[in-house]
Amino acid sequence: MSDQAIILFAHGARDAEWAAPFGSIQKQLQAARPDTQVALAFQDFMTPTLEAAVAQSAAQGARRIVLVPLFMAQGGHLKQDLPRLVGKIRERHPQLEIRVMPAIGDAPEILRAITDWVLRGASV
Amino acid sequence: MSDQAIILFAHGARDAEWAAPFGSIQKQLQAARPDTQVALAFQDFMTPTLEAAVAQSAAQGARRIVLVPLFMAQGGHLKQDLPRLVGKIRERHPQLEIRVMPAIGDAPEILRAITDWVLRGASV
Repeated sequence: MSDQAIILFAHGARDAEWAAPFGSIQKQLQAARPDTQVALAFQDFMTPTLEAAVAQSAAQGARRIVLVPLFMAQGGHLKQDLPRLVGKIRERHPQLEIRVMPAIGDAPEILRAITDWVLRGASV
Repeated sequence: MSDQAIILFAHGARDAEWAAPFGSIQKQLQAARPDTQVALAFQDFMTPTLEAAVAQSAAQGARRIVLVPLFMAQGGHLKQDLPRLVGKIRERHPQLEIRVMPAIGDAPEILRAITDWVLRGASV
């Protein structure tokens, strides 16, 4: 088992079906990296929380965590709430190396994929 | 000018920078389809509203609107709020043909792009 864990962090919603795409990404990542822990965590409405997911990863031997906020863009959730939360988690798990990836919308290749998908959908 | 308009519908946020990725997608689409109106609209916090964006597109000659909800997944916003809003808009603009695309997370190619992006970011 790798000492790296990938934690996908999503907003959460009241509707259980909302989590489906995030579950698909988790499965694809897990298939590509069978030796890495790949976990989902949610900010609101759904569980586990980010704190719980990190604690579980650490308990299973993770030393390096790549935290992937699956949010479209950088707003209050990613600029204020998440750094505060990660700060608390770092205090609690000082042995962990935690790296936070940017928002989905900060990745030019994903913006391009969305643009191409809209173009295909709009070509009538 | 085409009689088709593309309206990108995003959640909106208090932080003005949040809209940047959506603006990038709009610019890419507009560059790919110079004859099509490509507009942004927001559910909350930001303007224009969807109603205002549709009215503007119609005033500029659009007859067919492709409405693209730039939301990660289907939850209450897309399953309940948006259909209600589109219902009202259709009553007000009965001459418009409005087609609503699925959520971003419903597109397998975008989930794959996100997975690949995470794999690149996590490869340390």
